[in-house]
Amino acid sequence: MKKINVGLIGFGTVGSGVVKVLREKKGFLSEKIGLEINIKKICDKDISTKRKGVSVDKGLLTNDVKGIINDPGIDIVVELIGGIHPAKELIIEALNKGKNVVTANKALLSQEGKELFALASERGKNIYFETSVGAGIPIIKAMREGLVANKFSRVFGIVNGTSNYVLSEMSNNNCSFAEALRQAKLNGFAEKDPTLDIEGIDSAHKLILLTYLSFGKFISIKDIFIEGISRISVSDINYARELGFAIKLLAIAKKQNQELEARVHPTLIPEDHLLASVDGVFNAIYVTADLAGELLFYGPGAGQSSAVSSVVSDLVDLTQDIKAGLFRPTLKIIEDKSIKRLRSINDVESRYYIRIMTEDKPGVLARISGVLAKYGISIASVNQKEKRKSGQVVPIVMVIHEAREKDLRQALEIIDRFSIIKEKSVAIRIEEV
Amino acid sequence: MKKINVGLIGFGTVGSGVVKVLREKKGFLSEKIGLEINIKKICDKDISTKRKGVSVDKGLLTNDVKGIINDPGIDIVVELIGGIHPAKELIIEALNKGKNVVTANKALLSQEGKELFALASERGKNIYFETSVGAGIPIIKAMREGLVANKFSRVFGIVNGTSNYVLSEMSNNNCSFAEALRQAKLNGFAEKDPTLDIEGIDSAHKLILLTYLSFGKFISIKDIFIEGISRISVSDINYARELGFAIKLLAIAKKQNQELEARVHPTLIPEDHLLASVDGVFNAIYVTADLAGELLFYGPGAGQSSAVSSVVSDLVDLTQDIKAGLFRPTLKIIEDKSIKRLRSINDVESRYYIRIMTEDKPGVLARISGVLAKYGISIASVNQKEKRKSGQVVPIVMVIHEAREKDLRQALEIIDRFSIIKEKSVAIRIEEV
Repeated sequence: MKKINVGLIGFGTVGSGVVKVLREKKGFLSEKIGLEINIKKICDKDISTKRKGVSVDKGLLTNDVKGIINDPGIDIVVELIGGIHPAKELIIEALNKGKNVVTANKALLSQEGKELFALASERGKNIYFETSVGAGIPIIKAMREGLVANKFSRVFGIVNGTSNYVLSEMSNNNCSFAEALRQAKLNGFAEKDPTLDIEGIDSAHKLILLTYLSFGKFISIKDIFIEGISRISVSDINYARELGFAIKLLAIAKKQNQELEARVHPTLIPEDHLLASVDGVFNAIYVTADLAGELLFYGPGAGQSSAVSSVVSDLVDLTQDIKAGLFRPTLKIIEDKSIKRLRSINDVESRYYIRIMTEDKPGVLARISGVLAKYGISIASVNQKEKRKSGQVVPIVMVIHEAREKDLRQALEIIDRFSIIKEKSVAIRIEEV
Repeated sequence: MKKINVGLIGFGTVGSGVVKVLREKKGFLSEKIGLEINIKKICDKDISTKRKGVSVDKGLLTNDVKGIINDPGIDIVVELIGGIHPAKELIIEALNKGKNVVTANKALLSQEGKELFALASERGKNIYFETSVGAGIPIIKAMREGLVANKFSRVFGIVNGTSNYVLSEMSNNNCSFAEALRQAKLNGFAEKDPTLDIEGIDSAHKLILLTYLSFGKFISIKDIFIEGISRISVSDINYARELGFAIKLLAIAKKQNQELEARVHPTLIPEDHLLASVDGVFNAIYVTADLAGELLFYGPGAGQSSAVSSVVSDLVDLTQDIKAGLFRPTLKIIEDKSIKRLRSINDVESRYYIRIMTEDKPGVLARISGVLAKYGISIASVNQKEKRKSGQVVPIVMVIHEAREKDLRQALEIIDRFSIIKEKSVAIRIEEV
């Protein structure tokens, strides 16, 4: 049986999982694909520590990455070291040496994808990256191949497991953000420094890739409005629930008229919407396609075996591309030329949930609603919470009709300068999903 | 640019949609796939009636299906006539003449798939059938390719749009089955004779294909326990809701120990489960995969453009398979040899919702629970509804702990023979989803 040789760079959790699965499922996979996927070399800084659940022949292990890049017998390089450097340089060298590439590196691809995909195409090689969005959910294959006939107008969803876990904990256990994050760390669902996840950066990386798949455009992370979940309080979650909404951190890209908007922020969605039932570390991605309609793809957004599932499926796709010795490029992603510019967050219109912390004095509501009215903002519902004795600080919770971000920000800035307002007001978008 | 020639058999709703989309998106698709998909001939019984939204050159149209089958210039035959005969014979002839096949014919594949796929493999040709399950949801590609490294233990979901529409209408508008079905027909979501959809036959056809994709086994429709939704009453929907459940028609295949069970029936699922939010003609398919975990695929389960989306994606896959002139077979589906037999519905264990219509007399509950106890059936909750004056018929709604189907059937048979019982009792499975 013909062998396809793979060089693995990065022998961490996912890397060792790939080796384990390729070994345990060798017969199963060979029967499916008609050849053997053979790990020829594994490179890592640490080649002495034993990896859990997998023991490998010492001859396979190396510290020398050049040994993989320069080995003419290696057909595919799998990059699992993460980060921008030296991952970028290694992928470039691998492509230049005529190798195809599998990577799970969303940070790298979101920043350097345009250059890397162009180089791959120039060299007549493929880069597969299914693991980079939604872990084991085959969303990239679905969008690129399964929905090949479609044009997309919108893609949005929950793409970060850690922050969804934290919001779910807060909501289900009525606990603070800090306590929920502590739980997430204890259970291995948050890293020691969870900033990238909690502040929406990881979601933005994935949104860049989803935007590329949807519209054929590589936007920069600077083009994305990013707001994390660290300012969400459990009272907002509870007030939102009373109004019939759940709060989720969504990544959203959509085309409207000739503009593309891309943003990551906490969002109120109706409680009977499918996304509201996506709990814990699960991810769920919605796409709006002109032929196939509204589709949702849901599954665990993290975890060793989910990631391994997608790395192996990328490897299998590559074996099929190069099987006959004739290279088959992946289906091309076409740029949507009808998009003329990016829409600034200032111009995005949406409904909002607003919480204003004010002293409970006569005339407060009149002053607040007066400012909103001045900016053309119309109130859909208002609720003064927890009325206690006069003079105390109480939350006023409002839902406002569709308003332009810029107008709302200006109105809240003025309101927040009132002496009766005791905290910065909270405004969370309500998304029409 | 190289052309791949297609012969289309069946110029109905989907067929004319395929022609329209291939024409309107010609440039878009050619740029993606690097060649042109050309409809060379269209065969239909009726070639004189104008098709909505698409006008074709008369020279393309023919009554003579042999003209397509025998045309050596045609690379791919798309079968969209439905039914078993002559669709089966046409596909066999097409394969024998060296053509690849795309079909949306779930009734045919569920009955004759084993033979047809074997013949395709023998002839070195592919049969693609993405449209046959979940319309535009790329579930077949996801299971076969995206999850290629996985073994499946379970697949289940809502796979029939008509019956889900009817149940949603009943639930949302508090109306009877008959009224909901009337609405479905009015809105074009049910056929004149909706038996196949309403009685679960169409779901069973799709379940056969999902079982094949999951376990590599073609089961017969006779092996599937099938129960439709025509006996579901709006009161059952309401009682279930009070208990925190929604009622959905599910198709379920799962492996337990060495047995495979396959069934289609109305099912109670928790209201906060994703499937409970799947409304109207939408479909949603869950799979449990050993590496990727629990995944859900959701989208419109019917409609012209959804179907067209999948037919075109099948065509594109075939163009990539045959592009280089070297044939690339689809990934093989491996039989799960650990499955030794089918589990009879009699041996399936599950929790149940039960509604018993009884005269409201003293000692009724004691008699009923006595019979259940005799069969080892343990009651989790019981609720006597709408207490009116003594002697009237009232529903007793129960939830029972896990019980064997056979035991429950026998117990209910005895209970239904009591003179105080005025209607056949209703038992609906509660699925642990």
